[in-house]
Amino acid sequence: MKYNKCWLNFNPINNYGDKEFLTEIIVCTGNKENNSLIIDNAIKELTEALNKMLNIKVDQRILASEDEAATVKSGIILKLTDDSTLKEEGFSIKQIGEAVYIEAKTDKGLLYGSFDLIRRIAQGQSIRGLNITENPKNNFRMLNHWDNMDGSIERGYSGNSFFFENDEIILDERIVDYARLIASVGINATVINNVNVHEAATELITDRYLGKLRTMADIFAGYGIKLYLSANFAAPIELGGLPVSDPLDKDVEEWWKNCIKKVYEYIPHFGGFLIKADSEGRPGPFTYGRTHAEGANLLARILKPYGGILIWRCFVYNCQQDWRDYKTDRARAAYDNFIGLDGEFDDNVILQIKNGPMDFQVREPVSPLFGGLKNTNMILEVQAAQEYTGHQKDVCYLIPMWKEVLDFETYAKKDGSTVADIVSGRAYNQVNCGMAAVSNTGNDYNWTGNDLAASNLYGFGRLAWNTELSSEQIAMEWIKQTFPHEDKVINTVHEILMKSWPVYEKYTSPLGIGWMVNPNNHYGPNVDGYEYDRWGTYHRADRDGMGVDRTVKNGTGYAGQYNEPLASMYENIETCPEELLLFFHYVRYDYKLKTGKTLIQHIYDTHFEGVEEVEKMIEGWKELKGLIPDDVHDRVSARFNMQLENAIEWRDRVNTYFYRKSGVKDEKGRKIF
Amino acid sequence: MKYNKCWLNFNPINNYGDKEFLTEIIVCTGNKENNSLIIDNAIKELTEALNKMLNIKVDQRILASEDEAATVKSGIILKLTDDSTLKEEGFSIKQIGEAVYIEAKTDKGLLYGSFDLIRRIAQGQSIRGLNITENPKNNFRMLNHWDNMDGSIERGYSGNSFFFENDEIILDERIVDYARLIASVGINATVINNVNVHEAATELITDRYLGKLRTMADIFAGYGIKLYLSANFAAPIELGGLPVSDPLDKDVEEWWKNCIKKVYEYIPHFGGFLIKADSEGRPGPFTYGRTHAEGANLLARILKPYGGILIWRCFVYNCQQDWRDYKTDRARAAYDNFIGLDGEFDDNVILQIKNGPMDFQVREPVSPLFGGLKNTNMILEVQAAQEYTGHQKDVCYLIPMWKEVLDFETYAKKDGSTVADIVSGRAYNQVNCGMAAVSNTGNDYNWTGNDLAASNLYGFGRLAWNTELSSEQIAMEWIKQTFPHEDKVINTVHEILMKSWPVYEKYTSPLGIGWMVNPNNHYGPNVDGYEYDRWGTYHRADRDGMGVDRTVKNGTGYAGQYNEPLASMYENIETCPEELLLFFHYVRYDYKLKTGKTLIQHIYDTHFEGVEEVEKMIEGWKELKGLIPDDVHDRVSARFNMQLENAIEWRDRVNTYFYRKSGVKDEKGRKIF
Repeated sequence: MKYNKCWLNFNPINNYGDKEFLTEIIVCTGNKENNSLIIDNAIKELTEALNKMLNIKVDQRILASEDEAATVKSGIILKLTDDSTLKEEGFSIKQIGEAVYIEAKTDKGLLYGSFDLIRRIAQGQSIRGLNITENPKNNFRMLNHWDNMDGSIERGYSGNSFFFENDEIILDERIVDYARLIASVGINATVINNVNVHEAATELITDRYLGKLRTMADIFAGYGIKLYLSANFAAPIELGGLPVSDPLDKDVEEWWKNCIKKVYEYIPHFGGFLIKADSEGRPGPFTYGRTHAEGANLLARILKPYGGILIWRCFVYNCQQDWRDYKTDRARAAYDNFIGLDGEFDDNVILQIKNGPMDFQVREPVSPLFGGLKNTNMILEVQAAQEYTGHQKDVCYLIPMWKEVLDFETYAKKDGSTVADIVSGRAYNQVNCGMAAVSNTGNDYNWTGNDLAASNLYGFGRLAWNTELSSEQIAMEWIKQTFPHEDKVINTVHEILMKSWPVYEKYTSPLGIGWMVNPNNHYGPNVDGYEYDRWGTYHRADRDGMGVDRTVKNGTGYAGQYNEPLASMYENIETCPEELLLFFHYVRYDYKLKTGKTLIQHIYDTHFEGVEEVEKMIEGWKELKGLIPDDVHDRVSARFNMQLENAIEWRDRVNTYFYRKSGVKDEKGRKIF
Repeated sequence: MKYNKCWLNFNPINNYGDKEFLTEIIVCTGNKENNSLIIDNAIKELTEALNKMLNIKVDQRILASEDEAATVKSGIILKLTDDSTLKEEGFSIKQIGEAVYIEAKTDKGLLYGSFDLIRRIAQGQSIRGLNITENPKNNFRMLNHWDNMDGSIERGYSGNSFFFENDEIILDERIVDYARLIASVGINATVINNVNVHEAATELITDRYLGKLRTMADIFAGYGIKLYLSANFAAPIELGGLPVSDPLDKDVEEWWKNCIKKVYEYIPHFGGFLIKADSEGRPGPFTYGRTHAEGANLLARILKPYGGILIWRCFVYNCQQDWRDYKTDRARAAYDNFIGLDGEFDDNVILQIKNGPMDFQVREPVSPLFGGLKNTNMILEVQAAQEYTGHQKDVCYLIPMWKEVLDFETYAKKDGSTVADIVSGRAYNQVNCGMAAVSNTGNDYNWTGNDLAASNLYGFGRLAWNTELSSEQIAMEWIKQTFPHEDKVINTVHEILMKSWPVYEKYTSPLGIGWMVNPNNHYGPNVDGYEYDRWGTYHRADRDGMGVDRTVKNGTGYAGQYNEPLASMYENIETCPEELLLFFHYVRYDYKLKTGKTLIQHIYDTHFEGVEEVEKMIEGWKELKGLIPDDVHDRVSARFNMQLENAIEWRDRVNTYFYRKSGVKDEKGRKIF
């Protein structure tokens, strides 16, 4: 087999107690949707899962009427209902008598309920007395694949694309298993091509590819997933031969109308477009003196009659900055570019905003746009692909990071306005909102390069469905569906995952300053790698201290983009959260942190500790040899070796760099070069 | 036309006074070589040059006997002679009565004499009363082209190869003009393919290419130039299918015997091989526990019966160094690797040694190998390609650098042992010695990217012929053969050339420390670019000072590789030449230089001055508009714009880097970021 099934491996569960409820599957759709591919898939999943996990060969019965369903005494009953407590994708599971009822308003709800039941069984949980109702917190739960048509993946660390190869679309069994995997954790939308749309990818919206895309979209639809595409804002020029792609140009509008009409002729259930415009060299409305609202609304208006959505990325900044310029601040850019447009976007436009103001660093403050925009649909964009967090060589379980972002109180409203409140639509009664993750998948055997990185893909889906799940719980769910149910295995992997982000942070760039990576590939340390470059990513370290002054009083003013009391909290070095100290302030090496340590000693200590903790994780992992399949153990061990090498290099370079600059010796006399 | 003729453009000379001597060309070969292609070419050059420069249509007469020659009253007489003051390639020129006699022992001497006469006329010099004898100082005067078979050139800054394209050999008129150009300045050998021999280039020594190479070699031979090839030490494996390329293996020896036999069947006048072995990933004898002498001698023994030469590069060092390792010193490597082999190489082996111990930096000490080896043939390798000296965007006339190297007294012998003495063979009565330059040519219209960079190609040839020529004279010769004879033009260009190396040094890395460049491409500043890398190229700057301690007492011991009194001179910070201070010593920023300036102030001053002097060069160049052809002026102006941008970036990054580290302000309060 070319790939495993990750958390859908359906490992056997020994001594499971509740087999008697699970002998049969009965479907009761009432009068509607009695010919649903989604329900067929739900049945297939349940059938396969029960067979593999519990060795039950279930009978399937499709019943048409309520009356008939009422006669059923035992088994799993999938039932469409009008229960008003359920949202379109929600479901309930109730165990009554000898039966388990999965109820939902739609076939999608039944699918999610089925996966939920499987998930519980796979963890060995009893379903006796189960009585739960689940509605997704977010309507949009998306993946963004940065896959290129040649098969490469931008920032991909798990092999090549399973969607594209040599400018052709791949349609094979893996597409089905991909859909199963992501649907099982609640993902309902996916953008399969890179946001940087070049050459052949520009033609995805043409006859050249739409036929095959329809086939793919149909596979996805069977698992409740909508297909989206990244589109090229300059398509009217590149494909249409027009002289401009000005959003106010009539010919451009006409071109897009015809284009989108054709897309929907091929794929009536097409989701819409994701657009990266005026960003890192991509074309956009700025070229024509138009606003991003004018650019986005043009496409949104045309998509609207088809029910299409237009997602517009806010990753817009000056990537030709002069390092000598201390006033321009890339961190300010998204807010500065979009806050003035609040309320100007059509209701089927969603702004997609990265979690932080920079670019997926190991530690950033939350983007102030979330607390700023009040009349604009928003999607929170996180990156499961570990671009700056270890390339899926280093283990870095990212759910705790994303939880912090979701739980962040923006103070946009009086009555609760965390990022989770905002992107779920709760804060402002919005519908077109949610979360997106840059995917960490590729055609590697294990999908994610490092087997442990699958936890981020799993976790993203689960978190997007229910932002109130804890990181610990998500980790535990994933572990139990992935590894044998041995306490030692579960506890060790859980500990590794939960420590991994703090450990990665310790041995890399300190206290929120970010970067310090090798340019271009973004793996491994290079303290000055971006210091004199054009990307707006500086640490400004000198012999006395380091950090970027982003205060209103003396700095770039970025701190003032937050609502109070956040603005004042960040502005003041004494109240600024220490993990973000260097993001907001220039700080002397001899500054005393709340631990009583100086900044420089903190840097030394964390870097030594980071390596030690990697060594400890490796020791723990070694002890799992024989308790988990050898191939998994070997793959992860090989990754850990890379991580240790990387951590040591980070430790030594960062410590040496700052020792050479500060001249301050390590209090503990450890080796610095 | 796709390219110009550089210094062979034969621009018209107005009011030339000595036309009367130049109306006829008479050849007197006595009994020998009366059917020489070289002499035909000499006549062609004279004919074309006199026609274009002086508008003389010369008559040609080929005379067979001395008696007939004696009857000639006026004209240019090319005459073979047995004059014992002449070496094989030497010549004399005498103006007697109405005639100019060019005499030589060989047709090659006559060709060089003809080019010499043309050179004098092209400069507008009178030939009245001329009476000179010239013998080349070096027997080997080589170019090394780093051209790849795909047409790219490693470290090429002048377009693509004119030898290769798409794995094919190009044979066109440009090959002839190339041969004319380099022969005109005395170059007598050329290696046309990159020392890094991969894939198709490995096959140059096979039937696949030898037919075409024969044609090329014949063209070259017509201008007194021998064709050499870079060979792949692993060819017995890659081409022969042998399991090893061990130089002591009988099958390997047999394979090379057959290979070389075939090469000489195709090209009886083939020069030999250049080998880069055990260097930067290239295969070599170390793989098999053999010495470089064993590796080189294997090939030399087989080449010997054919008169072939084996040139072996000494660029052998550990390119996997750990930056944490302060003991390993790349500067020591060539000496350490080769000094123990002195006397072990066959007499048709030549070691090719880079001018400095590192790699063609803007300032390096002279390689201690020149003063160390006493029983080994040596070639001095310099780099006309401006890899670290501005990519032929920045003007950098390199002859003064090479002159310093040639004039360097090694103290290997009591009675004069400069590098020039050694590589000429004078010091140890050797024959197989000389100079090689990595070529700066490509298929650009002007051959060298920057028109002014042609001075380095010209100058290398002239200097290799006569190491006693001054940089100023060489510059002047080149200018007068290239530009209109206007005082303002000549003086301005001469000043630009003579200032250019010191200016480049000023705005780049200070006092011999080298590097500080962007990794890989080697253009533009990146102070820490190689500081934490594996290449052995460190500056070790901290908050107090910078530089590499290479003393015997406290450092790597490199200084001890020199003969006395050099070793002591470099060892002592007070006697170490200041331009090399940071190469040999770690020096505090507050160390007072002989100018009375501190090190840090010296860095600031030179970097500000460097940019100012580029600006002055540009002003000077601007004033030449209208006085020289527009296309030349425009091309060089465009390069100057790049140079200024580069110089400013160097100034600001270096100054900022060291200001941040040292905390010392510029005494003059200039802007540092």
